Amino acid sequence: MFKKSLLVRHCFIWTLTFISLSAQCQKSENLVQYVNPIIGTEGMGHVYPGATVPFGMVQLSPDTDTIPYETDGHYNPDVYKYCAGYQYNDKTIVGFSHTHFSGTGHSDLGDFLIMPTVGKLQLNPGTADDPESGFRSRYSHNTEVTEADYYKVKLEDYNIIAELTTTARVGFHQYTFPKTDSAHIILDLMSGIYNYPDKNVWTFIRVVNDSLITGYRETSGWARTRTVYFAMQFSKPFIEYGSKNFSKPEPYRGFWGKFNQGKNFPSLAGRQLRMYFNFKTNEGEKIKIKFALSPVSQAGALNNLHVETPGWNFEKVKEKGQQLWNKELNKIVISADKDEKINFYTAMYHAFINPTIYIDEDGSYKGLDQNIHQVKGFTNYTTFSLWDTYRALHPLFNIIQPKRNGDMIKSMLAHYDQSVMHMLPIWSNSANENWCMTGYHAVAVLADAVVKGNTPFDANKALDACVTTARHRSYDGIGLYEDMGYIPVDKNSNGTSTTLEYAYDDWAIAQMAKKLNRMDIYKEFIKRSQNYKNVFDPSVGFMRARLSDGSFMKNFDPLSTSGQGFIEGNSWNYSFFVPQDPASLIQLMGGKKKFTDKLDTLFTMHLSDKFFAETEDITRDGIIGGYVHGNEPSHHIVYLYNWTDEPWKTQETVRMILNNQYHTGPAGLGGNDDTGQMSAWYIFSTIGFYPVAPGSPNYQIGSPAINSAILHLENGKTFSIEAKNQGDKNVYVEKMTLNGKPLNRLYITHNEIMNGGKLVFYMSDKHS
Amino acid sequence: MFKKSLLVRHCFIWTLTFISLSAQCQKSENLVQYVNPIIGTEGMGHVYPGATVPFGMVQLSPDTDTIPYETDGHYNPDVYKYCAGYQYNDKTIVGFSHTHFSGTGHSDLGDFLIMPTVGKLQLNPGTADDPESGFRSRYSHNTEVTEADYYKVKLEDYNIIAELTTTARVGFHQYTFPKTDSAHIILDLMSGIYNYPDKNVWTFIRVVNDSLITGYRETSGWARTRTVYFAMQFSKPFIEYGSKNFSKPEPYRGFWGKFNQGKNFPSLAGRQLRMYFNFKTNEGEKIKIKFALSPVSQAGALNNLHVETPGWNFEKVKEKGQQLWNKELNKIVISADKDEKINFYTAMYHAFINPTIYIDEDGSYKGLDQNIHQVKGFTNYTTFSLWDTYRALHPLFNIIQPKRNGDMIKSMLAHYDQSVMHMLPIWSNSANENWCMTGYHAVAVLADAVVKGNTPFDANKALDACVTTARHRSYDGIGLYEDMGYIPVDKNSNGTSTTLEYAYDDWAIAQMAKKLNRMDIYKEFIKRSQNYKNVFDPSVGFMRARLSDGSFMKNFDPLSTSGQGFIEGNSWNYSFFVPQDPASLIQLMGGKKKFTDKLDTLFTMHLSDKFFAETEDITRDGIIGGYVHGNEPSHHIVYLYNWTDEPWKTQETVRMILNNQYHTGPAGLGGNDDTGQMSAWYIFSTIGFYPVAPGSPNYQIGSPAINSAILHLENGKTFSIEAKNQGDKNVYVEKMTLNGKPLNRLYITHNEIMNGGKLVFYMSDKHS
Repeated sequence: MFKKSLLVRHCFIWTLTFISLSAQCQKSENLVQYVNPIIGTEGMGHVYPGATVPFGMVQLSPDTDTIPYETDGHYNPDVYKYCAGYQYNDKTIVGFSHTHFSGTGHSDLGDFLIMPTVGKLQLNPGTADDPESGFRSRYSHNTEVTEADYYKVKLEDYNIIAELTTTARVGFHQYTFPKTDSAHIILDLMSGIYNYPDKNVWTFIRVVNDSLITGYRETSGWARTRTVYFAMQFSKPFIEYGSKNFSKPEPYRGFWGKFNQGKNFPSLAGRQLRMYFNFKTNEGEKIKIKFALSPVSQAGALNNLHVETPGWNFEKVKEKGQQLWNKELNKIVISADKDEKINFYTAMYHAFINPTIYIDEDGSYKGLDQNIHQVKGFTNYTTFSLWDTYRALHPLFNIIQPKRNGDMIKSMLAHYDQSVMHMLPIWSNSANENWCMTGYHAVAVLADAVVKGNTPFDANKALDACVTTARHRSYDGIGLYEDMGYIPVDKNSNGTSTTLEYAYDDWAIAQMAKKLNRMDIYKEFIKRSQNYKNVFDPSVGFMRARLSDGSFMKNFDPLSTSGQGFIEGNSWNYSFFVPQDPASLIQLMGGKKKFTDKLDTLFTMHLSDKFFAETEDITRDGIIGGYVHGNEPSHHIVYLYNWTDEPWKTQETVRMILNNQYHTGPAGLGGNDDTGQMSAWYIFSTIGFYPVAPGSPNYQIGSPAINSAILHLENGKTFSIEAKNQGDKNVYVEKMTLNGKPLNRLYITHNEIMNGGKLVFYMSDKHS
Repeated sequence: MFKKSLLVRHCFIWTLTFISLSAQCQKSENLVQYVNPIIGTEGMGHVYPGATVPFGMVQLSPDTDTIPYETDGHYNPDVYKYCAGYQYNDKTIVGFSHTHFSGTGHSDLGDFLIMPTVGKLQLNPGTADDPESGFRSRYSHNTEVTEADYYKVKLEDYNIIAELTTTARVGFHQYTFPKTDSAHIILDLMSGIYNYPDKNVWTFIRVVNDSLITGYRETSGWARTRTVYFAMQFSKPFIEYGSKNFSKPEPYRGFWGKFNQGKNFPSLAGRQLRMYFNFKTNEGEKIKIKFALSPVSQAGALNNLHVETPGWNFEKVKEKGQQLWNKELNKIVISADKDEKINFYTAMYHAFINPTIYIDEDGSYKGLDQNIHQVKGFTNYTTFSLWDTYRALHPLFNIIQPKRNGDMIKSMLAHYDQSVMHMLPIWSNSANENWCMTGYHAVAVLADAVVKGNTPFDANKALDACVTTARHRSYDGIGLYEDMGYIPVDKNSNGTSTTLEYAYDDWAIAQMAKKLNRMDIYKEFIKRSQNYKNVFDPSVGFMRARLSDGSFMKNFDPLSTSGQGFIEGNSWNYSFFVPQDPASLIQLMGGKKKFTDKLDTLFTMHLSDKFFAETEDITRDGIIGGYVHGNEPSHHIVYLYNWTDEPWKTQETVRMILNNQYHTGPAGLGGNDDTGQMSAWYIFSTIGFYPVAPGSPNYQIGSPAINSAILHLENGKTFSIEAKNQGDKNVYVEKMTLNGKPLNRLYITHNEIMNGGKLVFYMSDKHS
């Protein structure tokens, strides 16, 4: 059963007539209503409930705790829970900070935490157990409203209504106060996510006048050398202000002793600062704050503030932000029941948060080289979690965000130009590389775009960048890989999975080279792409760690993720990681029957607690049998049945995963959303196909979980999908037609989508 | 007796014919030969012997020790000796760093220390007692050559000849190595002057290729928020390189573990880094380094490097630097004996080091607001030690460096525009204000330029900036001063001397206002300028600390510098600080006779060791009687005899001070040169007059200590001074003529100088 609004029905009728949706219809479709940013905030989704616009630089969101990295000199494991600053089960809010990663497995950010209070001024956050001990406040989910680019909550300890919205570069706060002579707004410049000692490198502040503050904050965290500049404007002049420096004073203070820097002093700097601003308010009086960020300078932040938020109308800013979201969400208009729509559009929302723009209104940004660059002709992006996102997120962008994907690739090529390592990004953020995870998967993103013809960049230069990156012998075992055909685990502890990843990446480079007719490179890399075979042990039928002497490592345990040569996964999952050549893998594993059995076992085995405990980056919910959906290396596996004689198992298992792993509640994500990759998997799988091997133009057919979907393409064309007779039990694809003609294969091509048209699935409760 | 070279004789003859020197003669006059940067490097002169061009951004000089601010948790008093990095009596050199203050009473800088070594690689400096324990080396003054923009020494432990020269923004090193397979060049990014714990905020490094490194260093020292960017180029590729991070590692290193960051790793960052670069050298092989600085960016530093030092010819760079010096030194061509010339041109050299340019080749600089500014139409300067330099250095510039002085004032006005305090600089450096010392003496610099008609800036805007600064009630007692007419010492411990200084500064503002016909301002500030009377106690005949209740402080001791309300001085010296109104002061002190006696006493008293020990900022040599020449507040005092009936005492005492306080040896300066103020006093006094009250167009006549001096003015005119019959005993001015006509007064005016002409002193061994 599904319900649809009249509007949706209206649009649905339009699609049936094969006429692309009119602008009016696109405008009138309110899809923002289905987005719920609270989904995934409980458990390990690592998403935040606050406000942001699509791909925005600012992510303004409540932090329910600011857990220190260390307690009593020891790592505090709780810090990992707070990657996005918010945990649904927490009872207090510390404040609202301006930068958050969405769904990462590590963290940073949480810059410039703001908290409104009344009564006694407190300049420490206090503890969750004793909120009275600091400026934090109790809150209840009953008063919480979470929408795309809008967050609202009542701060119960202060009787203050907090509302947040944003533009791309400005956080817009609106605080409704009670009547009081002692209203405070705290600006905490020490607070941060994953805040270890000495993470705060420096802070610089100028109180320009009675309602404007500019400054910057330098941190050394996951991004090693990072500066965020800001400009903060109040809607109402403060009466007085002050600060406290929590770092130990420098020995030389000299003539600074002329001043009481703690009160009404406009020129502050130090390592650990908190500020406050005092007001008097009437009952229900709103104090608003515009808080602009810049990667470049205070002047840049101020310009961003003036250009993006010239006025003080909170509702207008919110409305504009939600219009931006609606425009992006309308790129795929589905008909489905409400829960499905909530899951789908929340997935769309999560997929359109990262990468984030990293450039000022005036076109300047800070590069990896820490120089300021002036951009010509593109928008610079950062937050590239490529080990995750090359799989489905960037391929999704190639369909419904091709212009942005082109700009993202231009940003990666700028990173390459600025890289003193001469490498494309691995995991880059805020003008920094953090080298997180394995492979050099930027090449897959570039190859996918080139193979699919989305090349608003210099494709040959892009290929050169891929090749130079892939030949960087001193990087993470590449020299060994080149010399031996695999990376021995006695030299590199993740050598086995890295070998598999490099082999796939090399295949992607080869596809790109072939497309560009650079056949020398094609030959070199298509050969390298066969290296996965070197870590396959036919005696056990699994991928297996190999040593420098050529032997396979002893004590093989395909379930263990520890010490077996695989990063964040076990051999059971990684053994299927040959997305570039499933047919050969099947041969290697003994043919289709054995391969099918092996897949069946993966999805049905019982994983003992011991092995679960070892499985990183997911909750128990993120695992189905031994299949780990909550982390990325297995995301393509379910589609591998398409190469066997039982592709219906792809269809039923995809549906099982969709049902099992994505829900509408706060705990609705089975693992970190990984900057949109989990959501992109959901979007593809829901509309019926998936890019098993980015760099290939083909998408493998799965089982559409909606009644229809209309893809509004940037080229003005429309690709419609209809799933006739689809339902919870009707998960099997009986037959398909493309533009009215039978489609007798298990994939569709990129061109078939981009040319526009209609794909009809005829669904059944029985598999063939 | 004096000797002169044929060249000097040649020029001398020219001057006698009243024809201004031809360009050829100016060119051929080698005055650089008289500069000896070693003067003042022993004791408390706080000057450095290394290389710099006039007003250069780079000061490349040997550091003989890098004393930590603290030893065992306690302040190390030796740190003060190393304000300029070099102490003549030290036996070892730690390395050569690129930034040094010249003659300051506090310090900072010492950025980017470079040391060439051979043999075993050592990455710590070691100790002076045991040079083998680190990379430092023994050296001898026998092998040392110190010239303007050239320094040479043999590093004995390594048999390396080190040579240094500079351009405005680039340090140029030339190291002549022995034959060795293990030549090293250390780049110490931790080392610094006045290096207290946590002074190093951050360091960022990129090894761009096998001979180019760029990066930056952030410090929080005397300049609180300071970043210096650099680009370093070797003349020869290094074979290998490495680094050591001496700061405690951050808890999160994560995937950086993929790398051995210690060796051949091009992307470094941290708080405490040292690097090394390895070479093989043949006997006598020279390795050269170009090391460019920028206040803006690495890209700016690299551009500075390319523009200023396109080639590798060390001699040519040195020659060009010395030509620049020669051009500046030729602005005053004196005839005198060789020692006098050495003292004079070394004083000219020291006077033309500060303020320093603070702007890139492309016209951009970092402002006080930490934003990058693009300059239109002027050169930006920093290093404004205004409590010192308003007295004689800027007045000297108004005569022989008017264009630069105009740019310096434009720089101060830019500082004012960028100041969130809305104040002109007090003591500013490297885009920072450190608030050092008292008064708001920038106004005297601005007033002096306006009154003298050197106004390539908006004079009315300058006046507004002065007024706003002087009305900043929350700054250092100004509110009290405005309300009470003096600053009570129970509210402000330096209140008495600050009252005197404000009163003088206010007079300067009044002169400026009068000149600009802003009579309201004139009236306000001429009234304020009388406030010095409020701290004069007629019962004791001295300036004396006053309390809030109007009473004078008990326990008055005119010799004590401690707890008496005076900064860096005692009442004996400060009681004469009414440069704006000596006639009234004389009345206040009981008339000319009593005043003369008092001055006599000052110059002849014996200061007990107790009081000497209290007297800050000078050595015993810096004191004559109770007169403290080694610090600034008394610099005008000797000229006050001109207001009495015995002006000849000015003449003989000036000569006594000149002889007593300035010598040609390493200990030749009696106190810190104070960024050129001590030297400017010397230059003025040597040519026969002195600006007692900057803001007045008049210069008080003293006693010329040269035979002749020709001032080559920027307006193309020449002002010649001849001192007929001048000699060690002929110190008294019998009569004077100006342009052939008798000059029957004890001052000359600025216009008389700038119009060109000739002033002739007729000297005698008897006073009238």
